[in-house]
Amino acid sequence: MFADQEPSFAAVIQAARRIRGHARVTPLLRSDALDERVGGRLLIKAEALQRTGSFKFRGAFNRIRAMSETERARGVVAWSSGNHAQGVAVAARLLGTSALIVMPEDAPVSKVAGTRSAGAEIVFYDRYTEDREAIGTRIAEERGAALVKPHDDAYVIAGQGTAGLEAAAQAAQRGLRPDAALVPCGGGGLIAGCALALTHQLPGIALHPVTPAGFDNTARSLGIGARQGNDPATRSICDALLVPTHGALTFAVNRKLLQPGLVVSDDEALSAMAAAFRHLRLVVEPSGAVALAAALCGRFDCRGKTVLVIISGGNVDPDMFRRALEIGDAAE
Amino acid sequence: MFADQEPSFAAVIQAARRIRGHARVTPLLRSDALDERVGGRLLIKAEALQRTGSFKFRGAFNRIRAMSETERARGVVAWSSGNHAQGVAVAARLLGTSALIVMPEDAPVSKVAGTRSAGAEIVFYDRYTEDREAIGTRIAEERGAALVKPHDDAYVIAGQGTAGLEAAAQAAQRGLRPDAALVPCGGGGLIAGCALALTHQLPGIALHPVTPAGFDNTARSLGIGARQGNDPATRSICDALLVPTHGALTFAVNRKLLQPGLVVSDDEALSAMAAAFRHLRLVVEPSGAVALAAALCGRFDCRGKTVLVIISGGNVDPDMFRRALEIGDAAE
Repeated sequence: MFADQEPSFAAVIQAARRIRGHARVTPLLRSDALDERVGGRLLIKAEALQRTGSFKFRGAFNRIRAMSETERARGVVAWSSGNHAQGVAVAARLLGTSALIVMPEDAPVSKVAGTRSAGAEIVFYDRYTEDREAIGTRIAEERGAALVKPHDDAYVIAGQGTAGLEAAAQAAQRGLRPDAALVPCGGGGLIAGCALALTHQLPGIALHPVTPAGFDNTARSLGIGARQGNDPATRSICDALLVPTHGALTFAVNRKLLQPGLVVSDDEALSAMAAAFRHLRLVVEPSGAVALAAALCGRFDCRGKTVLVIISGGNVDPDMFRRALEIGDAAE
Repeated sequence: MFADQEPSFAAVIQAARRIRGHARVTPLLRSDALDERVGGRLLIKAEALQRTGSFKFRGAFNRIRAMSETERARGVVAWSSGNHAQGVAVAARLLGTSALIVMPEDAPVSKVAGTRSAGAEIVFYDRYTEDREAIGTRIAEERGAALVKPHDDAYVIAGQGTAGLEAAAQAAQRGLRPDAALVPCGGGGLIAGCALALTHQLPGIALHPVTPAGFDNTARSLGIGARQGNDPATRSICDALLVPTHGALTFAVNRKLLQPGLVVSDDEALSAMAAAFRHLRLVVEPSGAVALAAALCGRFDCRGKTVLVIISGGNVDPDMFRRALEIGDAAE
């Protein structure tokens, strides 16, 4: 497999073998109260409980482990708002190499701390005026280090897909068959990987990407069939999903496999965080909560259906979490 | 087996069969950061992710399921500050009977709401001036309903023990053998059941009960070899552990199987909640955090050891959780 070519279902299986014993098998959670509220059955894949607090460890570990020893020894470079950063930093440490991460100055404190404590070097940039890909690519070239892209890489996509593969197996173990899956979407790596896994294991499943309002490029791109951008003046608290556009490779996969995109507001994400606090006892970050928000706010009609909902991460600063607790669970 | 006689390991195995498919197999979590801090390996059994948000569902379901159909049909009565309440309420509903719960007026709002939404009837009492056991026993007698005691019942103890049985199996699957276990302790049901399971599966394991400061009757009782009470004027935010004294049946088990008790302050429990927020992405209630607090504050020396830590519940009101976020993680 080449990193710049579309991965297949077999790549997800291979990734699952590579990450076994390193990534965690995260639980598929249930809540009677949430099921009652949506009138369906939610199977909630808790990637907030993944190593490093988000699904990103899966793809990062798969990518770095698949490198040749020579390539890996030269170190890796990545850009990330913080979840991919921590995934790459911890995977690099476990695999005996060094990592440099290009991070926005306004990344959550907890994400910067997590990346640093894993031993990675950090270079900051301004999210709104500088080009992180240009900075990362330049540094990688200077050092002769390999880039670990956050989504536009076949190994990364396949690694993220193991979350979907696991969820399908966990559902099957309980005799359940998801009719649909709601997946947070920024660059599209998580949902592309999950789409490869889920459409293979559960033919006919409806896969919907969920994005924050103002960053609905994915929804528009899927509608038009070509990659669209977002208004650069838009802001959102969903810091992990603020990408300029869907990846080229992820879009090649996603345009074939996805259903229409769903959009939620920042307040709806906060309210879903409060619902997860109360009913799942899970700490979820704003970006990680958008798919749950889509289910709870009726963007997707769950009535009578079994719906896989991916909670993608739980790296959130106390101040932001307090905001969620103040907004509260809209249904209370 | 009789409800008022000491249960054996076999009773835990039988309980595991009864609750299978109804209770959840909760994950055994890890955190590189927490391991680094204590200098050992923490295996964290996340009973906050159990159905109803605490381990109490295990014992309640086991107790009610073991009743004869005639007995069960008359309904059940329990007293509880909120976790046993929700466990009994949901177990009763699943098993087709009704539940009445005697709860303190100052129980956390979320626990009252959870109990009510499961369809139970609630009778409130004053925790500091009234006798909940007298109230519950009277109501049960009036209705001809069966009491589901919070800890002094062989079926309840055996049910709670399934958390320890699961944890031992999960550790073994990863090739790990816990040297010690730290378990939150109020009436002593959870640790009595876990002691039956763990001392059988892992001979030589050191089991320490952990209680909030001022409610260290267990530590004193174990030292003296006879049940001691607590000063009734003492207060703690650990609402689930505020029992007047250890149970008679649980003490009969625990005096044989436990090591000395450990004591943590309310602020240490809050700080452990903040650590769980940050490093485990888990919502933990004060009572549920005391064993983790004992590890993080050095009450138990984890250096070089593999230590099973039970997080017993995650039913906490937003205000209390905000207090934990404000106190923060002491190590930050």
